[in-house]
Amino acid sequence: MTADNEARVKAMAAKAASYVLARAPSPVRSRALLNMADRIWERREEILKANALDLEDFKSRGGSGALADRLLLNEKRLKEACDGLRQVASLQDPVGEVVEGWRTRHGLEIRKVRVPLGVVAVVYEARPNVTIDISGLAIKSGNAVVLRGGAEAINSNRAIVGAMKAGLEGLVPVDSIQLIESTDRRLVDELLKLDELIDVAIPRGGASFIKHVKEIATVPVIETGAGNCHIFVNLDADFEMANRIIVNAKVQRPSVCNAVRKVLVHRDIARDYIPLLMEAMRKHSVRVRGCEVTRSIAGDVEEATEQDWYEEYMDLTLAVKVVNSVEEAVEHINRYGTKHSDAIITKNIRDANYFTWNVDSACVYVNASTRFTDGGQFGFGAEVGISTQKLHARGPMALRELTTTKYIIMGDGQLRE
Amino acid sequence: MTADNEARVKAMAAKAASYVLARAPSPVRSRALLNMADRIWERREEILKANALDLEDFKSRGGSGALADRLLLNEKRLKEACDGLRQVASLQDPVGEVVEGWRTRHGLEIRKVRVPLGVVAVVYEARPNVTIDISGLAIKSGNAVVLRGGAEAINSNRAIVGAMKAGLEGLVPVDSIQLIESTDRRLVDELLKLDELIDVAIPRGGASFIKHVKEIATVPVIETGAGNCHIFVNLDADFEMANRIIVNAKVQRPSVCNAVRKVLVHRDIARDYIPLLMEAMRKHSVRVRGCEVTRSIAGDVEEATEQDWYEEYMDLTLAVKVVNSVEEAVEHINRYGTKHSDAIITKNIRDANYFTWNVDSACVYVNASTRFTDGGQFGFGAEVGISTQKLHARGPMALRELTTTKYIIMGDGQLRE
Repeated sequence: MTADNEARVKAMAAKAASYVLARAPSPVRSRALLNMADRIWERREEILKANALDLEDFKSRGGSGALADRLLLNEKRLKEACDGLRQVASLQDPVGEVVEGWRTRHGLEIRKVRVPLGVVAVVYEARPNVTIDISGLAIKSGNAVVLRGGAEAINSNRAIVGAMKAGLEGLVPVDSIQLIESTDRRLVDELLKLDELIDVAIPRGGASFIKHVKEIATVPVIETGAGNCHIFVNLDADFEMANRIIVNAKVQRPSVCNAVRKVLVHRDIARDYIPLLMEAMRKHSVRVRGCEVTRSIAGDVEEATEQDWYEEYMDLTLAVKVVNSVEEAVEHINRYGTKHSDAIITKNIRDANYFTWNVDSACVYVNASTRFTDGGQFGFGAEVGISTQKLHARGPMALRELTTTKYIIMGDGQLRE
Repeated sequence: MTADNEARVKAMAAKAASYVLARAPSPVRSRALLNMADRIWERREEILKANALDLEDFKSRGGSGALADRLLLNEKRLKEACDGLRQVASLQDPVGEVVEGWRTRHGLEIRKVRVPLGVVAVVYEARPNVTIDISGLAIKSGNAVVLRGGAEAINSNRAIVGAMKAGLEGLVPVDSIQLIESTDRRLVDELLKLDELIDVAIPRGGASFIKHVKEIATVPVIETGAGNCHIFVNLDADFEMANRIIVNAKVQRPSVCNAVRKVLVHRDIARDYIPLLMEAMRKHSVRVRGCEVTRSIAGDVEEATEQDWYEEYMDLTLAVKVVNSVEEAVEHINRYGTKHSDAIITKNIRDANYFTWNVDSACVYVNASTRFTDGGQFGFGAEVGISTQKLHARGPMALRELTTTKYIIMGDGQLRE
């Protein structure tokens, strides 16, 4: 194998493994996850050493801050990831579920059954714990996986994948987990064109990377991530609840996709509420940009340009706009949003219903923080990513989202008329 | 509007309409379908005249045979399509269904609800009745649709769409149905890149067209159609049933995607069964190509090349291969097939189960003709196409496959820890 054909060779190995893995009984797949956790924990020293090497390289090239923190592994994080594997192992197996079934007028018995997708390719950022989460979800759901993590985490990923493969031994094909080791970006492009081998590609990362993947891929893609999330403070909102939720959604982790980027305020409460919002934002060092009305109320606020309404701020920036109605709020969100997570703060059912059914997003909240859009928070044990497209899966993706269905049709000689 | 921006202008109109349509109550959408049927039937003379024009053009350019027959409308076919609309109108509305729901440990109430996709773009062959089927399914499921039918059917489609739009008047936005009238192929390519406006593109047609769409599209695509379908005659098969099913699947309509292209025969019965199969094929003018063993048994049979096993014959050609086991049959199908429809003829449960769970296709049959893979035959009223990919929808696509889900989350001030 040369670097040139690494993508194809590993995808082929994954494909071959996937057919055997798909036949593995549920307890065998769950046992594989427990063994993966055990092997990772046994080799924690080796893994943390590899991670230290990655961090050193990263910092020597000037890396720091949030990105370095995402790259970092320590015993606690490794233990959490291993606990995650054990939790996913204990979840109900999606494979084999009979989703529905009926008998046709010809006497054919049709069953729609849940089966693994086959080979899942995930291209993700330099977060080594994600390597563990995704592999666990894939194996549990009967899928082989081709991993391509951020180049900065290559040593960590190599050590982790080695341990996980050891966990598969004697249970399911070791080839079920494949790590692309070349850091050449062209390999990603190649991977995205292996139609016969890859059943779905899940890119994680920034908006420009996702766009690139969509343009280049011929394999089916599930788009993840970009989160220009909104919170609409309705005319009957509890101001304190609104502020608590906005602070939680804005400040806790401003660079993640489910953080809030825009606050819309109903005009009837703008004069009373915006000063309170501004105070809370100032207290948490949030820079506010505003529409004209907001600025006329709040004074010292930078102007939000048309581009601002599209922007997914990665820092403590928030844009505020006053709208005339829940209808205008919905329209604004559907126009400028990224179909990720949006919330309304309100007391009345009519507006809550209008908002939840008409905002065209994966997750629509009433009186709660957008930060809950997460596989773990939803109770899925882990997540592969958050789908912002509408096909196949929408919102946090976990076990069931890594399956497809097929029809099994039993007859006794039926012919079509 | 110039031909240059027709795709964008019409997709924008469809997008705007889709938000209003999605809010239309279920009975209003069903009523729209009934009105569409009434308007089409009232204008049947005009529609048939337009169709006669299309046919004349087509034949003057040398068109004939199966393609001309697909293009042809007559009162009977128009009536069937109108009856189809009425049947779809009476089906259960998929929109609004609560697929599942639970309460999280934070007290959030999560509901996963079914909603329309938004704007569905369908690029299809010159079959004017398909224009009616797809529009009916789209409107019933709350989706706006952008239609781009085969250039040869442009007059028919214009007349049909005019009648259908008249049926929408006063109920849902007339813009919910859009027909691309320019026959310039570049418009299809443009349509496939309108990420902000098109929620899914469904291409129908030949393998090379589907391949082109996958390469060029940045909008999500559901791949349809190519059908290199297999029937495996197992060692315990009822020979007469096998022949009846193979004749039905091969001869009835050899150019459709669910027709059989390959027969695999278990080696233990090859010597007894292949002569019977050959006789039946001769009787129905089917040309047979064979593997070496087949040829040694059947004598006068053309050699099947490696390429033949991949081929989706559009005529009365069939390739026959002798295999050593059900395992080898499954392996062959997964290697050369198109994941559409495959069947086993057998009496024993073990082989039936092995085959159905391990053949990686949308529809897997035991003792029945592959020709049943069809929305109508499955009881869906009509179909948009048959998905041969694994994401979102697999097999015949109808109302439910034109929906997505979203999460609605009700809280009372929950913050993420």
